[in-house]
Amino acid sequence: MAMAVPKLRFAPPQILAIGYAVLVLLGTLLLRLPAANHTGQPLPLIDAFFTATSAVCVTGLVVVDTGTFFNAFGQTVIIVLIQIGGLGFMTMATLFALVFQRRLSLRDRLLLQEAMNQGSVEGIVRLIRRVIYYSLAIEAVGALLFAIRLAFDMPLGRALYFGIFHSVSFFNNAGFDIFGDFRSLTDYADDPVMNLVSVGLIVSGGLGFIVLSDLADYRHKKKLSMHSKVVLSTTGLLILFGAVIILLFEWGNPGTLGGMDWGGRLWGALLQSVTPRTAGINSVDLTQLHQATHFLLLILMFIGASPGSTGGGIKTTTFAVTIGAMIAMMRGHEDVVFFRQRLARERILKALTIILLALALVIGVAMLLSATEGHDFMVVLFETTSAFGTVGLSLGLTPELSTFGKIMIALTMFAGRVGLLTLVYALKPRKTSEKFRYPEGKIIIG
Amino acid sequence: MAMAVPKLRFAPPQILAIGYAVLVLLGTLLLRLPAANHTGQPLPLIDAFFTATSAVCVTGLVVVDTGTFFNAFGQTVIIVLIQIGGLGFMTMATLFALVFQRRLSLRDRLLLQEAMNQGSVEGIVRLIRRVIYYSLAIEAVGALLFAIRLAFDMPLGRALYFGIFHSVSFFNNAGFDIFGDFRSLTDYADDPVMNLVSVGLIVSGGLGFIVLSDLADYRHKKKLSMHSKVVLSTTGLLILFGAVIILLFEWGNPGTLGGMDWGGRLWGALLQSVTPRTAGINSVDLTQLHQATHFLLLILMFIGASPGSTGGGIKTTTFAVTIGAMIAMMRGHEDVVFFRQRLARERILKALTIILLALALVIGVAMLLSATEGHDFMVVLFETTSAFGTVGLSLGLTPELSTFGKIMIALTMFAGRVGLLTLVYALKPRKTSEKFRYPEGKIIIG
Ligand SMILES: [K+]
Ligand SMILES: [K+]
Repeated sequence: MAMAVPKLRFAPPQILAIGYAVLVLLGTLLLRLPAANHTGQPLPLIDAFFTATSAVCVTGLVVVDTGTFFNAFGQTVIIVLIQIGGLGFMTMATLFALVFQRRLSLRDRLLLQEAMNQGSVEGIVRLIRRVIYYSLAIEAVGALLFAIRLAFDMPLGRALYFGIFHSVSFFNNAGFDIFGDFRSLTDYADDPVMNLVSVGLIVSGGLGFIVLSDLADYRHKKKLSMHSKVVLSTTGLLILFGAVIILLFEWGNPGTLGGMDWGGRLWGALLQSVTPRTAGINSVDLTQLHQATHFLLLILMFIGASPGSTGGGIKTTTFAVTIGAMIAMMRGHEDVVFFRQRLARERILKALTIILLALALVIGVAMLLSATEGHDFMVVLFETTSAFGTVGLSLGLTPELSTFGKIMIALTMFAGRVGLLTLVYALKPRKTSEKFRYPEGKIIIG
Repeated sequence: MAMAVPKLRFAPPQILAIGYAVLVLLGTLLLRLPAANHTGQPLPLIDAFFTATSAVCVTGLVVVDTGTFFNAFGQTVIIVLIQIGGLGFMTMATLFALVFQRRLSLRDRLLLQEAMNQGSVEGIVRLIRRVIYYSLAIEAVGALLFAIRLAFDMPLGRALYFGIFHSVSFFNNAGFDIFGDFRSLTDYADDPVMNLVSVGLIVSGGLGFIVLSDLADYRHKKKLSMHSKVVLSTTGLLILFGAVIILLFEWGNPGTLGGMDWGGRLWGALLQSVTPRTAGINSVDLTQLHQATHFLLLILMFIGASPGSTGGGIKTTTFAVTIGAMIAMMRGHEDVVFFRQRLARERILKALTIILLALALVIGVAMLLSATEGHDFMVVLFETTSAFGTVGLSLGLTPELSTFGKIMIALTMFAGRVGLLTLVYALKPRKTSEKFRYPEGKIIIG
């Protein structure tokens, strides 16, 4: 007896893309209100749209200064958009589903699977519940620590407000700050507490909920999945590698690390190594960095955070698989092996294709903007990569963008957040059934 | 009864790499001689080494002006190095083998297979004989046409000398010119004969001998291999695409195409679209191009010519396979299909890996040089890509390089010419036998 499965009107990738789009529209309307800022004038539509997209996509590129332009209401709208965008509107939807109907339909589970990029349906509900729990718990701890430190510099109520805003923003790798005047963390460049809490929030938010969940289970299971091992080791190596290179390049640069004592230099190198993947805050003046350091940040922004996390980019696992494939090819090995487990060919192909697809998008948009915005190519490439990786680091181009430039960067953020493959599937959902395969041909490579 | 196969002392990739290295050393010694230039002083060792590497690797990046610094002897050394380097010392070795011993050993055939990047051993000797025949024939036609055109501007003997030099240089995609003062083809920017002959030589040299041979057989066979079809269509599309974009970006630029009539603009766009893959001559002032055009040239240089050709880069087929893999992934297809034939998974993996390996090399070297040479990052990246693709286009950095910079660029040219994979195999020839495979693990990508 065949079961009658109801036909979906939209495929999961389409619902995902539409969900983010609806959130952006809602945010645009709210941020446009005169009541959302100190001037009492409505924010131009394009700027409201850009800010909402930046918040929902947890990017942090801004055209107006969050701290000085928006009032408490506007900032609250932004931080709520960040929280929803970061946890993913799917997670929020599940929360309501759990509360109101206790059990999920198969369709809901399939949607969740797409959103969380999880391999199996089972355990998804448990994972979602944990997502909410961990996120709020980590954000609460971060907010408290920030508030205690900031209470030395401002009234307690304001310190608590700042603590909550920045804890949510940093854990969700959103990169928004309300310190004012596009300052980000520069006032606290050598402050151990601010640096440590920021790095802790950013890194734990960027590991991805699957890894966090796996880590929480470690006490019982006494083992980690290969995925978690790859994420943790890649994250660690990238942070170390980035910090060392930044220290080398910037040690004697008076505009950045050169003016600090060795403690400040270490904190500066660590924060600037962590933040491009893909938090987007900064504690030194980015425009003063060497061009080689700019390019290092570009690479780190492109790599980004880990799958199922609040961060963007091509993801650490994609990067690790690519490096693994290169090493395997150079050594003449047939398989890519991580921690005594080999990867399926399809996974490797997917990783390599994602990288090249992302490269094509970033370079294409940068070339277009270079022609329309007339800025230095590296600055345009930096801003485009920052948007694609939902990073939010800027060399100053974003506030000067033309309307066309703002739309392009907003769309790039959207593509980076929703995910290139999801977006492509959303636009072209119908899978053609391949009834026969063509014979194999020969071609000479390289 | 098992046959006793004699053990090779060097693996084919090692012999290839060593062969090129010996040629470079020989060239260095000859170009260093005071008799090779007009000054009567010996050229500094590093500059002789750089010029020899540039000639053997058919790159065309120069630290001294070929036309005004070297005398006829020096220029002859350079053009001979280009001819040997271009045809490949392996092809030359075969020539001698054919002349002196008539039959090739299995070992020689395996070496040839590596050098020509040919899939099967059979037909290699026939191919090599054709390589020599076609090359000389095409070069002779080119030299004659150049000489006839140049005879209007200079004495006949000089026109013939110029014709031969530039025909050999252009067919081998070497990019060396003796017009003087780093002028390249700028004096003939809107000259139909010089443009047409140059484009013809560059493109036919860049198609690769396998395609040329396939084209020659077309009269009998009435069909082309998939390899040839892919090479021809990719080459055509890249030239068209490049020319259109250059026309768009540079139409109104008074420093480049803007100052010409529409005929000159078309020739200029065509030549500048053809030359980055990977001839390296230029008919407009490259430093005057828009930055977006620089980046387009960067991409074309990176792609380069076709396998088994005189040109460098990652090769047109590698690029085509990558694009095919991206499209297949986006459309949810399992196979990459060209002209009704599918590609083996291994080929696709190889293509994607080569691209990323090349990217890693180019970006790594550019970051290093950006730190040591202190120039604009785009200029450094342009010069590094030009070296890797054995292109020879320059934004002016090469003559100003430090000794360290010259060595790095020379090594990059060498890696680009010998081929990254060949070089890696040469350094690490021992293939480990994989007696067992690890179990398959799960990882989440993208
Ligand atoms: K961000
Ligand atoms: K060349």
